[in-house]
Amino acid sequence: MKGIILFGHGARNPEYIEPFRRIRAVVEARQPDVQVEIGFLELTQPPLDVSIEALAARGVNEIRVVPIFFAPGRHVLKDLPELIGNAMERFPGISITVAACVGEVDAVIDAMAGHAIQA
Amino acid sequence: MKGIILFGHGARNPEYIEPFRRIRAVVEARQPDVQVEIGFLELTQPPLDVSIEALAARGVNEIRVVPIFFAPGRHVLKDLPELIGNAMERFPGISITVAACVGEVDAVIDAMAGHAIQA
Repeated sequence: MKGIILFGHGARNPEYIEPFRRIRAVVEARQPDVQVEIGFLELTQPPLDVSIEALAARGVNEIRVVPIFFAPGRHVLKDLPELIGNAMERFPGISITVAACVGEVDAVIDAMAGHAIQA
Repeated sequence: MKGIILFGHGARNPEYIEPFRRIRAVVEARQPDVQVEIGFLELTQPPLDVSIEALAARGVNEIRVVPIFFAPGRHVLKDLPELIGNAMERFPGISITVAACVGEVDAVIDAMAGHAIQA
């Protein structure tokens, strides 16, 4: 079974989670068979490893982690692979892959540009 | 004359500016009459006030600042209005308004969800 984790940095602001919830709702509406979780590096709950554990508990064996970051920096290139490495040791039956950051994707760039123009 | 500033937090990673450049290129292609600048709160150059100054020097008198943030936190709700307040004192002939954060916009949420599904 497939799962998606929307991975964010985390922030003190409690509303920071809101876009993640909205993205999850859209994904779930379009792909009801896919299990979707949200997980963070720090500050915002839940942490990524808890999200991976939740998917594992539901029988997910293929997880794609989608970094909700504008660009791949240290958190995506170093911290995230470490977290995933640890999770793959804990759950050896699960494959975990990492998608491009949302800020690297043409359709997202176009949508942000459209907003800038409309603004 | 109208101008747009794509406003970001800034980061140590030099590639952090890349999505901003791509958004600017799309906006300029669609709206050749609008002057587009990029400006940051910290770490990445140029700072927002330098971008405002650059637009002012080109005769822009209406600036929309578009926060390239997933959600409005302290930086957008507190730091940005302070920076804008200072700029409006320096350039009293210019009107500066702030758009919604890109992470609050339906089309951006949809595009991120689409990427999560494709991923």
